[in-house]
Parts: sequence; structure tokens; C-alpha cells
Amino acid sequence: MNYYQEHKSEFLEGLKAFLRIPSISTLPENKPDIRRAAEFALNELRAAGMTSAELIESPGDGNPLVYAEWLGAPGQPTILFYGHYDVQPPDPLDEWKSPPFEPEVRGDNIYGRGTCDDKGQVYIQIKAVEGLMKTNGKLPVNVKFLLEGEEETGGEHIEAYVKTKPPRLRADAVVVCDTEMFAPELPSICIGLRGLVYYELSVQGADHDLHSGVYGGAAPNPVMAIAEILTALKDRDGHILVPGFYDRVVPPAQKEREAWARLPFDEKEYTEKEMGAKELVGEPGVPLFEKVWARPTIEVHGIRGGFTGDGAKTVIPARAVAKISTRLVGDQQVDESIAQMQAAVKAVCPKGVTAGLKVLSSGAPSLTNPDNPYIHAAAEALKEKFGQETVYIRSGGSIPIVGVFDRYLGIPSVMMGFGLPDDNLHAPNEKFYLPNFYRGIETVARYLEMLAR
Amino acid sequence: MNYYQEHKSEFLEGLKAFLRIPSISTLPENKPDIRRAAEFALNELRAAGMTSAELIESPGDGNPLVYAEWLGAPGQPTILFYGHYDVQPPDPLDEWKSPPFEPEVRGDNIYGRGTCDDKGQVYIQIKAVEGLMKTNGKLPVNVKFLLEGEEETGGEHIEAYVKTKPPRLRADAVVVCDTEMFAPELPSICIGLRGLVYYELSVQGADHDLHSGVYGGAAPNPVMAIAEILTALKDRDGHILVPGFYDRVVPPAQKEREAWARLPFDEKEYTEKEMGAKELVGEPGVPLFEKVWARPTIEVHGIRGGFTGDGAKTVIPARAVAKISTRLVGDQQVDESIAQMQAAVKAVCPKGVTAGLKVLSSGAPSLTNPDNPYIHAAAEALKEKFGQETVYIRSGGSIPIVGVFDRYLGIPSVMMGFGLPDDNLHAPNEKFYLPNFYRGIETVARYLEMLAR
Repeated sequence: MNYYQEHKSEFLEGLKAFLRIPSISTLPENKPDIRRAAEFALNELRAAGMTSAELIESPGDGNPLVYAEWLGAPGQPTILFYGHYDVQPPDPLDEWKSPPFEPEVRGDNIYGRGTCDDKGQVYIQIKAVEGLMKTNGKLPVNVKFLLEGEEETGGEHIEAYVKTKPPRLRADAVVVCDTEMFAPELPSICIGLRGLVYYELSVQGADHDLHSGVYGGAAPNPVMAIAEILTALKDRDGHILVPGFYDRVVPPAQKEREAWARLPFDEKEYTEKEMGAKELVGEPGVPLFEKVWARPTIEVHGIRGGFTGDGAKTVIPARAVAKISTRLVGDQQVDESIAQMQAAVKAVCPKGVTAGLKVLSSGAPSLTNPDNPYIHAAAEALKEKFGQETVYIRSGGSIPIVGVFDRYLGIPSVMMGFGLPDDNLHAPNEKFYLPNFYRGIETVARYLEMLAR
Repeated sequence: MNYYQEHKSEFLEGLKAFLRIPSISTLPENKPDIRRAAEFALNELRAAGMTSAELIESPGDGNPLVYAEWLGAPGQPTILFYGHYDVQPPDPLDEWKSPPFEPEVRGDNIYGRGTCDDKGQVYIQIKAVEGLMKTNGKLPVNVKFLLEGEEETGGEHIEAYVKTKPPRLRADAVVVCDTEMFAPELPSICIGLRGLVYYELSVQGADHDLHSGVYGGAAPNPVMAIAEILTALKDRDGHILVPGFYDRVVPPAQKEREAWARLPFDEKEYTEKEMGAKELVGEPGVPLFEKVWARPTIEVHGIRGGFTGDGAKTVIPARAVAKISTRLVGDQQVDESIAQMQAAVKAVCPKGVTAGLKVLSSGAPSLTNPDNPYIHAAAEALKEKFGQETVYIRSGGSIPIVGVFDRYLGIPSVMMGFGLPDDNLHAPNEKFYLPNFYRGIETVARYLEMLAR
């Protein structure tokens, strides 16, 4: 038995302690928990044998970065591990089967907010390094860690920091464990991510709520106006109607399309069991993986306005607010797409109301070349530990920092993720498949061994 | 000085005590306040000299009716006074300049929830009767009171009670003080009301919230679906797209249209000051009073779904809910319009989601003949006390019980209201113009005198 097999129960208990900290970055009241989670990660890195471990404070009121390094392998490559210790809010709370911050193992899964996204995967990275250090007293390559606490809110602090190109971040590749495998036994590397611009759309009608009997038929209605704006931005077939929005969309290569078509996939299972939906929607004639990996979208994440309590109240509300986002692909540019969206909202805004579209966060799309040697080695390590050929996939999600690493540090991101498609990210009952947790630790360790020249 | 002039300060203090009871019928937690308000009215009626005063309890969990009578004028007509002691919820609370249930006089107005709708006007009826009784020891005609506590939630109890045609409700006319005057010095009688059907529209997509990156482009989005349904029910010009909806709409007579065109009206003042809006919307080419008094509408009163907290959460929500209503006019039938709406929602419901349209309350439209002698006498009493010719108007609002009185008791409703257009009904800073409160009491008393044969 090696170190990894001997310490499974310690790994699980350590992960649970990490998960119990409600480090929700979107809620101001959880600010102290954010710091506790950063310090937890810092202590784990020190215990794993990393040096120069410290919190990098934000110049503003941002959340601290966690940095650590081990540079005892001169002449060998340097790997930068990235992950995030913050999590999404847990609401709606009443849909959780066990409390979101009291992790519970049921069957082969551990349930709790952050189990998969991303504390479980950050913990994989730390424990992989710990195992090599405890076993050999050293690492096969140089290793750096940079963990952030604002991934779920837009990651401004890490972006600002990386953009200064600090010498301590010099590395040959970034390893990002924040994506998912295509199927439970199918090792996968993600080579493409969609970009994201997250907006708040607010619409103001009259300056106070109006009686819908007295004024209905003549008064502007901001909820109706939001409905009119949304349906003018995207049609029922999922086509975005924003002028110019598709201009820089690059279709996937024929070879990539063919590889996607060969992926093991049961559409009925995906739709009904994984998503819990009755049917798929979206652009007619576009294959599913192209829809979610290689096509831009507009989604509305939430809306509120007027009276929503029990019973009836006959008001025309003064104001309504929606949270919406665009996902970007190919060569779409964040700034250009924002300008297009703002112009479109202005153009389609109904009579009688004022609409404002405020950007809350943004990140560029990214696409990596699978022939890169750091990606190739990751595919080999995965194949060895999972016993199957690694597939190259994309993700419809967004990890804005990947584009920033590419642009400012000039290094590729190796997106070696251990999540599964049904892990309920950002939703109630988030989980992590424990066999992947343990195999993930061993895979990352094996990857570092393979990188040694 | 007569009784009415001598007791102004007692009338005001009594009204304040009535207003301090937060008898919000839409909120279950205010159930005890509902009973307190009913008992308050009951005691006031007894003090005014009415007999047989009692609460009529609901067979279910409805709110009590308040009944009282004085039948000491044999051979004279019998008038039934109707009003409601329940009020709308006060939210949004932070927009009130003084607390909604701590009435405050500022200038010529009294501010508070229910000041105008309808406690202030119910109090006018009670004090009018009290003054005649205290002055003469009797009333010129027979009088009955029937006050309800569910007007703001649909009034099921009173409807069920009136539909049994109880002998004690026999009367020659109903006097309803729950409408408004066209302008502060312009006495007005309302002869038409729009009907109302209030619905909850709920849309279900997947059975749990989904990550918008992973599934966006293929997953059904219930908020977007509500937007698509709403815009398919009504176009940007305010035209209702529900098949058959306009079939029974009766246009106003040419004479009525001409009278409306002569009403003193400043559209800029109405739009910008009264409504606080930048422009009027609705059906192009239709005059304003026709839009709000004689045309059906669909309005959305509130909507909620998904994440609406601070910051960003990239979910596709599982469910969204909107409160919507239709206002009905002319010969539109409640049941038929419900069937049309339900068929329309079913027909326009987007792919991938399930939509449900539940009726929360309903009331038929009504239109009264202004040549009726009970209406004519009211116009004369108003003219005498306000010093101006009375105008006949309609209201865009709905008082469902008016249609029920017509159909089941066979008597006309005299809608003699003392509210003003800027009284902020159903909105923050609801108010009542105190000169109308005092003149209203005298007008109702004068009306009863005029009815004596």
C-alpha cells in the first residue's frame, strides 16, 4: 500500500473540514468564512511541505489569494496549480437533502456545497503534492499554488494580480482542476471554455407602484418590459438577435465534431435523469455538444419585480430587475459583445420605461491546442490511472482566469477535471464522486512524475 | 354649526383608530387584525344607533361580514351601504414617508394604508348615519350596512352570502363608497367598472436548478419561458393576442365618449405628476379614458424566479412564477375569458417547460344606467355639497361585488366615491384628501334626506 491508499480516511476527513467552512463569496455576511477557508488551505499547503506559503491580500476589499511554492527541482519544469476556495450560495436551501455545509457521504458520493466546485478538486492538488513529499521527501518538478476566493463572483483580485505578471508566477503550465470528466470512467481533458459576461438588467417604469385597475392599459409595466426585452434579444429557437453577435463565432473543426459524435452519450438519460427536464431546447439542427460547448447563448438567471407574496395584489410595479448573462465562444471579444448587448437593449427597450444594463463580471472564452506536451502528459497520466484512453472535450462553463493566464503569463492551462456531469454544480445537492476524489489525487501525482525530464 | 361641523376632530380621531389596525387580508399573519377591524366597525355602527349589529361568520376560514340595520322608516326606501374594512399589504415598506399603520396628517391629507381604500370611505358612511341619528333621533330612510373583510383578496365570503339572497339584504339600492372623484372639486359618480380575473402563472423547467455554463443553450429556462408567454399574450402596442378575447367588448356610446372628452384633464400632469411616468403607453389611437375604463387589459403584477440576491449566480432556474390579471369590460364573461386565457397559455407555452395558470379571484365587469332615480339623487346631493354639476365617469378598477348585487339582489349600485386620482391606492403613501372626508359625510347624509318620499 502506498501513501495514497493508506491515507484515504484522512483525506476524506480533511476535505470535510474544508467543506464545513461556508466560504460563499457572493454574500457579504460570509466574509469571515472566506478568510477561514483561505487560512485552512494555507495550513494544508504548509503541512504538505510547501514553502513561502502566504496570503496575498487584495489592495481593495477583495478576498485573499493563497500562494505557496516548492522550487527544489532545478532544471525541471514548473507547474502552477490553480483552484478556488470560494463557493456558490446554497439557496434554495429547502431542496438540499443534507445541509449544504455539513458534508455527508451517501453511497459513493460526498454531498455539500463546494464538494466538486472547487474545494474537492483543490484538495486533490494539495494531497497529490503531500503524498509525493511524504513518500520521497521531494517533488519531481517545481510546483507553485495560486488559489483564489472570488471565482464565483468574477475573480477581480486574481486577475489584477496576474496582469502585473509577478515573477513568482513564472511557470511552464497551469493545472486547473475545476472541470468535469465526460463520464464516470472516461478520463477527459477540457481544451475549450466559453466566456461569460454577467449583467444586471434593471427596468424602471413609473416612479411608484400604480393600481392596475386605475392605470392598466395606459401605464408602462417594467415586468412586461423585461419580458419584451428578453424576447427581443433571443428568439424561441435560441437564436440570439443581438446585431453582430455571431460575427466572430468560429465553428468547431470537422475533426472535433466527429470526435464529439463518438462520445458515449445517452440523450434520454442526460435530459431526463441528469437535467431532470422533459426535453432539450435550443437552436434546431445544432448537435447538443456544439450547442453547449461551441455556441454563444443568452440566459436569464433570476428575475424579481412587483408583488410575489401569497394571494393577490393588483399593482403595476415601478421597477423590475433581472440577472442575465451571455456565454461567448471562439473569437468573440468581451468588450465588443458588451457594446453589442448594450446597444441591443437600448434599441429594443419598450416605450415608457428606462432600461439599464450593468456588467457585474466578465471573462473571455479560451481554446487550447491539444498537441501541447503538458496536455499530452496529462492525458497519459489519466489513461494510466483510469485505464481508458483520454478524450478531449470542451466545457460550456467559464473559467475566466484561464484566458488571463494565457494572455499575461503566456502559458497553457491543463484542465484536468474530476467532476461528473451530474454533480449539481451551483445547485442544491452538489456532490463529488469519491472514487474520482481518490483517483484524482493519484493522477495528479503521477502527472508530476511524468513531467520530470 | 351642525353636528357634522362640530365633530370634525372626533371623526378624524376615530378614523385614525380604525386605520391603526393593520387589517391586511392578503397576509395570513394579520388574521387577528382582520377581526379587530371588523369589531371596530361593529362598535362604531352600534354607537351610531344601528340595531341588529353583528358579525356574520364565514362557514370556512373567511373573514367576517359586518351587518347592521335601522328599519324605523316604514314606507320609505331602503339603502344598503357596502364597504370593506380590509386593506392591501403595505410593501414596499421603505417607500412610505410615514409608517403605513401610523396615520399622519400632512397638509390637507391623511396618509396611511386604507385611508382612501376603503376605511376612510366606510367611515364616511357610518358618520353620515350617526349625524342624522344624533341630530334627529331617526333616519329619513331605512338603512342597512354590509361590510366585508376580503375585498382585496377576492371577496369569496360576501359573494357566497349574497348569492343565498338573504331576506335581510332586501334593499332598493346599494351605496358603494369605494371609487374616486375625477378631480378634487368635481363631484363624480362612477357608472362602470372593469371586471378582473387574477391568476398565478407558474412555469416549471428542469426539476432542479442547472449550471448555465454546462447546460445553457440546451436547457429550458422557465424565466425566459414566462417572458415568451407574456409577450405572446399581449403585443408591444397593448393588443391582447388571446383568441376571442375582444369578441364581447362593447365600445362606449358616442355620447359617453364625447362627455369623457369634455372632462377637465391635463395629460402631462396626469402622466408625470400623478403616475410619475415619462409617457403613456397602450393601444395606439385609443383615447386615454377609453383605454383605462372601456378596454380590456392584461397586466403582470409581480414575478420571481431564480437568483435575485446581490452579485452573480450562474443558474438556469427550475421554476418561475408570475402574478397576472386580465381586466374585463362590456359583455365579457368571466368564465369564458378564463377558458380563453388557459387555452392561450397552453397554445403559446414554449418547448421544454410546463405552464400552469391558476385563478386566484375573479369578478364580472358592470355598467349601470345613469337615469336610475337612486343615481340621480346621488348626483343632486353631490352637486349641492360640492357646488358643481356632477359628472358620470367609469373606473378601470374592479369591485366584483357590484356585479353580484346586480345579479342576485337585483338592485343597482350607486358608486359615490370621494377618493382622488392621486391617492396612491395599493401603493406606498396612500392618502385621503381630508376636505373630501368631511364633505363626503355631509353628502351621504344629504343623499339619505333626498331619498325620503
